[in-house]
Amino acid sequence: MQYRFKNARILTMEEGRQIFKGEVWVSDDKISFVGTDSEAEQRLSEISCSWDREIDCAGDLIMPGFKDAHTHSAMTLMRSRADDLPLDEWLNKQIFPVEAHMTGEDCYHLTRLAVLEYLTSGITAIFEMYLTPETIAAACRDTGMRCVQTGCYNSFMQSAELVEDMYNKLNSPEDPLNTYILGFHAEYTSSPEVIDKMAALAHKYQAPVYTHLAETAAETKGCVERYGMSPVKYLSSRGIFDYGGGGYHMVHVSEDDMEIIKEKGLYVVTNPGSNSKLASGIAPISDYMKHDIPVAIGTDGPASNNALDMFREMFLVTALGKLREEDASAIDAMEVLKMATVNGARSMGLEDCDCLAEGKQADMIRIDLHQPNMQPINNIAKNIVYSGSKQNVKMTMIRGVIRYEDGVFNIGDDPENIYRQAELIKERIDKTLV
Amino acid sequence: MQYRFKNARILTMEEGRQIFKGEVWVSDDKISFVGTDSEAEQRLSEISCSWDREIDCAGDLIMPGFKDAHTHSAMTLMRSRADDLPLDEWLNKQIFPVEAHMTGEDCYHLTRLAVLEYLTSGITAIFEMYLTPETIAAACRDTGMRCVQTGCYNSFMQSAELVEDMYNKLNSPEDPLNTYILGFHAEYTSSPEVIDKMAALAHKYQAPVYTHLAETAAETKGCVERYGMSPVKYLSSRGIFDYGGGGYHMVHVSEDDMEIIKEKGLYVVTNPGSNSKLASGIAPISDYMKHDIPVAIGTDGPASNNALDMFREMFLVTALGKLREEDASAIDAMEVLKMATVNGARSMGLEDCDCLAEGKQADMIRIDLHQPNMQPINNIAKNIVYSGSKQNVKMTMIRGVIRYEDGVFNIGDDPENIYRQAELIKERIDKTLV
Repeated sequence: MQYRFKNARILTMEEGRQIFKGEVWVSDDKISFVGTDSEAEQRLSEISCSWDREIDCAGDLIMPGFKDAHTHSAMTLMRSRADDLPLDEWLNKQIFPVEAHMTGEDCYHLTRLAVLEYLTSGITAIFEMYLTPETIAAACRDTGMRCVQTGCYNSFMQSAELVEDMYNKLNSPEDPLNTYILGFHAEYTSSPEVIDKMAALAHKYQAPVYTHLAETAAETKGCVERYGMSPVKYLSSRGIFDYGGGGYHMVHVSEDDMEIIKEKGLYVVTNPGSNSKLASGIAPISDYMKHDIPVAIGTDGPASNNALDMFREMFLVTALGKLREEDASAIDAMEVLKMATVNGARSMGLEDCDCLAEGKQADMIRIDLHQPNMQPINNIAKNIVYSGSKQNVKMTMIRGVIRYEDGVFNIGDDPENIYRQAELIKERIDKTLV
Repeated sequence: MQYRFKNARILTMEEGRQIFKGEVWVSDDKISFVGTDSEAEQRLSEISCSWDREIDCAGDLIMPGFKDAHTHSAMTLMRSRADDLPLDEWLNKQIFPVEAHMTGEDCYHLTRLAVLEYLTSGITAIFEMYLTPETIAAACRDTGMRCVQTGCYNSFMQSAELVEDMYNKLNSPEDPLNTYILGFHAEYTSSPEVIDKMAALAHKYQAPVYTHLAETAAETKGCVERYGMSPVKYLSSRGIFDYGGGGYHMVHVSEDDMEIIKEKGLYVVTNPGSNSKLASGIAPISDYMKHDIPVAIGTDGPASNNALDMFREMFLVTALGKLREEDASAIDAMEVLKMATVNGARSMGLEDCDCLAEGKQADMIRIDLHQPNMQPINNIAKNIVYSGSKQNVKMTMIRGVIRYEDGVFNIGDDPENIYRQAELIKERIDKTLV
C-alpha cells in the first residue's frame, strides 16, 4: 500500500531535529519520504506519485511508534489476579501455579490480547520474554506486531538448546516481524551451569545477551552472598556480556556496576510501573544518563504493571526520577521520548525502526492533538510525556500496515473473540487450581 | 430526561457492596433506581416507567464519577510551558509572570478547556481554587461541570471580603452546579493577619476551611522557623480548622500533625502527579489510613501535573505508596477507588454525589470493559486502578446530563472553539511578555 500523510506535524526523532510541519509517505513496509511541505511539493514536481490513501492529519503529530522494551505478553491472564500482595506471595502463590497450567496455545491467544493493548498505546514493537517462543511468534505474525524475543531459560525452564534453536529459527528473513536475541531469565534463577552455557552461546554467535538484572535489593544482596559480587559484576565476569546486551529493571546497582555497564556497552531497560507496583525501588536513571548509558523503557508483564501503556511508563520515568533526585529538572521530556523510541529500537536490534527517515521501516503513530490534554500547544514533546494518554493514539502503523485507527483494530480477528479466548483459558485454569 | 442503563455491571461505592449486574435509572438530575436485574424486573412490574433513552451497557461498568479534589483549572494555559525546571524558577519566572496578565475572561475560556479534559477522565466534580471565582463558576455552569470553589486569598491576592462574598454568592440554590467552601492559598503566602481573618470567617459561619498545606519540605521548615510550629499545628493554633476542612498536598507532616489532623476531622487531598513532577516528595498515605484520616485525590493544576487524569493519579497514589512503604501490599485498589469517589465528594461537601443510590445526584460514568486493558475480567476494581485509562471512559454524566459520550462532548460549544480561544490567550500574553 502507498500512503500519503499530509498536513502533519512531524517528530522524526533524528538527533537534534525539531518538530516541523510536513508530509510522510509510505511505500509498502518502508518510509519513502519525510519532509516539510515545500520539500514535499518539490518532490511531487520531480516524480509521479500515486497513493492508495491520502490522509489529512489536520495538524496531528506523526512520530515513530513506541518500543516496549520488556514484556511478558501472555501474562495478560494474570492481570488483576494477584495485586496488593507481598512480592514472594505474588510470585509463588499466584503466578507460578497459573503458569504451570499454561499451554502454547494459551500463550498464543493471550499474546494476541496483549497486542491489542499495545496498539492502543502506540507500541509498534515489543521485546518479549515468555514461555513458548514459537506460539508467541505466531501471535505476533498473525496480528502484525513486531516482536523481538529473548529466552527465559533458567534452571527450571527452557534450555540452552532451545535458546539456540529459536535464535536460528526466529531470525529468518521470511518472517520480518519476528526476530530473536540471546537471553536468559535471571542470575537468581540460574545455576552457574546455565550461565556458562549462555556465555558460550554469546561467544559462539558473538551476540548480545539480555536478562532480568538487579531488579530487587534482595536479588543483588543474594548474588553478593552467593558469589561475592553484584549480579552485573558476576555475569560480566562469566563472559555473558562480552558482546553487549543489557538488563531489564536494573534498579539496584552500584557505581562499580555503572562502570561495567558502560564498558560493556549495555542497554538498561527500565520498568518503572512494575518496579513501583511491586515496591522494588526507583532505578537511578539520572545516573545512567550521566554515564551516557542508553536507557530504554518497558512495561514488563501485565501481572505486575498491570497496564501495557507507554504513556504511563514515560511519565513514571521522569516523575520517579525527579522524586529520586529531589530535582524537578531531572530527566527532560525529550530524553524520555528518545528512550521510548530510538533507544528502545536500538536495544532490540531494530536499527531501521528507530526514527522516521526515508528507507526506514514504516513503524509510526499518529498522535491526536485535537484533544483537550494536548491543548494549548506550548510544547508537543512535553505534552506527550506529561499529559499524553492512550486516548491520543489515533493510529498505529507497523511495517506500513495500519493496525489500529480511531479505536478500530485490524489484527485478523475480532477483539471480542480474543477476549472470549482469554476468559475460557481463565475458567479452565481456575477449575484446575480449585 | 429519563434514562435507563441496563445490562450493566454496577459499582455503587456504598460501603461493603460488591459489583453486581443490574440497572441504573436516572430521572432528571437524580438516580431513581439502582438494583439487580431481578430487582429491576420487580420494580417494573409495580410502576409504569417511560424513558427518553434506554442504554444497553453490554456489561460495561456504571460507577460514580471521579471527584478531582484539587484543581487550578485555568492553568491549562501553562501546560507544558514550564517543565523540567527547579521549583522556584518554575513558579517565579514562568507561572507568576503569566498569571499577572490573565483576565477573568481568560479564566473562563481556560477553565472550559480543563472541563473538556475532566470529562474525558470521568471527572464529575472539581474542587477548584483560582483567580476569578465568578468567571470560573460561569465556565462550569455553561459546560455543565460540578464545581466546588475555595478561595486563593493570601497576602498578595484576593481578600477576606471577596472570600465571604463568594461564600454567600456561590452557594445559591439557583445554581446547583456551583458551590463555595472557605479557603485561602497557604500559610507560606499569608501573613498572620490573613490567617486570623480566615479563622474569623470560619468561626462566623461555623464552616470548614481548606488550604495548601505542608506541600514541600521547605514550606514546613519555613513555618517552623517563623512560628516554632509545623503548618498544621500553626494553622490549628490560630483556629483555622475549628470547624474542620482540610489541606491539599500534605506531604511533609509529623506524627504530631497526624494527631491534630485526626482530632480536627480534616481531609487530606493528595496530589501525587504534581508532587512527583515538582519533586516535592511522596505523601504518607498509608499512615493517614492507619489513623483513619480520610484521603481524597486531586490532580492539581495542569502547569504542575500536567494531565487532568484521575486514572494516572489513582495509580500513583498506590504505586508511590507501595514504593514509600517498600511493601507491594500497601494501599489496596478498592481503597483508592473510595478516595477518588466517596472521600472526594465528602471533602467537597457533596454528600449527595458520593455513591450510586436512589435519590442521589446522577453524577456517574460508564467504564468500557470491552477494551484490551480491562481483559480478562479477573477483578474490575483492580483493573480500573492498575490498568484503567481515559480511553476506558465511554460516558460521563453530571446532574443527569450526558456531557461526554464516545468521544463527543456536549458542553454548549465546539471544543475547537475553546482550543482556539486558548491559543489566542497564549499568543496575546506571549506578546506582552516579550
